[in-house]
Amino acid sequence: MPKEANNKPLILVSNDDGVRAGGINALIELLRPMGDIWVVAPEKGESGMSHAISIARPVHAHLLKEEKNLHIYSCTGTPVDSVKLAINKILPRKPDFLVSGINHGSNASISVIYSGTMGAAIEGCLNGIPSVGFSLLNPSPAADFSVAVNIIREILKNLIEYKLPQGTCLNVNIPDIPLNQIKGIRTCRQTRGVWREEYDERTDPRGGKYYWLTGDFHNFEVGAKDTDEWALANNYVAIVPIEVDFTSYEGIKFLNNWIYGI
Amino acid sequence: MPKEANNKPLILVSNDDGVRAGGINALIELLRPMGDIWVVAPEKGESGMSHAISIARPVHAHLLKEEKNLHIYSCTGTPVDSVKLAINKILPRKPDFLVSGINHGSNASISVIYSGTMGAAIEGCLNGIPSVGFSLLNPSPAADFSVAVNIIREILKNLIEYKLPQGTCLNVNIPDIPLNQIKGIRTCRQTRGVWREEYDERTDPRGGKYYWLTGDFHNFEVGAKDTDEWALANNYVAIVPIEVDFTSYEGIKFLNNWIYGI
Repeated sequence: MPKEANNKPLILVSNDDGVRAGGINALIELLRPMGDIWVVAPEKGESGMSHAISIARPVHAHLLKEEKNLHIYSCTGTPVDSVKLAINKILPRKPDFLVSGINHGSNASISVIYSGTMGAAIEGCLNGIPSVGFSLLNPSPAADFSVAVNIIREILKNLIEYKLPQGTCLNVNIPDIPLNQIKGIRTCRQTRGVWREEYDERTDPRGGKYYWLTGDFHNFEVGAKDTDEWALANNYVAIVPIEVDFTSYEGIKFLNNWIYGI
Repeated sequence: MPKEANNKPLILVSNDDGVRAGGINALIELLRPMGDIWVVAPEKGESGMSHAISIARPVHAHLLKEEKNLHIYSCTGTPVDSVKLAINKILPRKPDFLVSGINHGSNASISVIYSGTMGAAIEGCLNGIPSVGFSLLNPSPAADFSVAVNIIREILKNLIEYKLPQGTCLNVNIPDIPLNQIKGIRTCRQTRGVWREEYDERTDPRGGKYYWLTGDFHNFEVGAKDTDEWALANNYVAIVPIEVDFTSYEGIKFLNNWIYGI
């Protein structure tokens, strides 16, 4: 490794739209001056892969590009596989930061649990790495990330200066509007809501039925100003700090009344 | 639908080890007298699939068996796809309960986030269905579920009587020991811990490297008696009530000090 690289932070970059997506390439260009950049990202689109890992199949990685302070690998696995393999087999040392995205489309509210982009960020967090996932509210493969990178630069300045509490990572969603219409960056909580499916039922040429997943997001708390969906609908960037303790502490009290006959 | 089915609860059953696994079949036998049982489960093993959904490919379902109060379908998608498709296209109405498992192997501590069995249970919960995932601490395909079903019967009696608070589901892990060695059923919180990988690196016949995921669980709080790992290590069944708010409320305070130049 070149000597000057030692003073730069080592930044691991991943996503779920695949290593060739516009979002990750906008992120790479933004990050290049900031550190020694190691990209390990899925070779194809892995949207909706959540925190999935490959247990029943092995994973492969391929070096696509190596330049000064820039190393790009594709991985045949999921976003979380990419992060695990990067940390364990590809990177020269534990990264100082993990940045995931820029996702093509929102990962606000309950979408955080389906998102491969956030799966990668959460996996970094579980490994003690200050981690953040960025998403632009435009699912198009041709989305324009030029406004988003300005927002992300401001957030990364803080991340580099302050790091994050152990066990906490960030889910950042950015409205797809001109920079001068963005009202600011708001720290939020995750909106309560759900995706309601409307499966698109089709018949294959041999008469078998198959189903495409479609659906709409239902916001259970429209108007709650401390939520990420409210912030985004009102032209704010939404930052939700997240942690991965699934325990319902209220639920513990509820269960203390259960009686078992064993 | 036969008339008598109307008085019985409609129970949706899924898992991540696939519709032919021993664990789900032990669960089906246990549940049959309790209700109108609809099984929609992956056609093959989907362990480690977390909350993944199929976006870029359609899903298919196939009816495998239909008897009185028992309907078994395989689904080509993930555990969460199976639940979504069941609720939206296969079941005659919204189920009264969702039961996932019995998983072959532990889903305690941080494994909850990787688990497809828990992905299915959580998806039920998000849809307002009282849901629970069961796991036996034996990853063998030939595991013996005869003790586990006795435990599960006791827990289901409570679930049917008391339901669960909205937005809460259960992650139940059962030690693989004789019934008379089980000390009881303990309500717990999720242990803080992490899987540390040791990738098994191999070379394919054409000289390319590939990697199998292996690793060990590291418990960050050995000895904490309110955790699921402590309960299991001490011969208790561990029930963790879980909810899917990823927000770190402590993290919100931390971020209020960040300064943005936009």
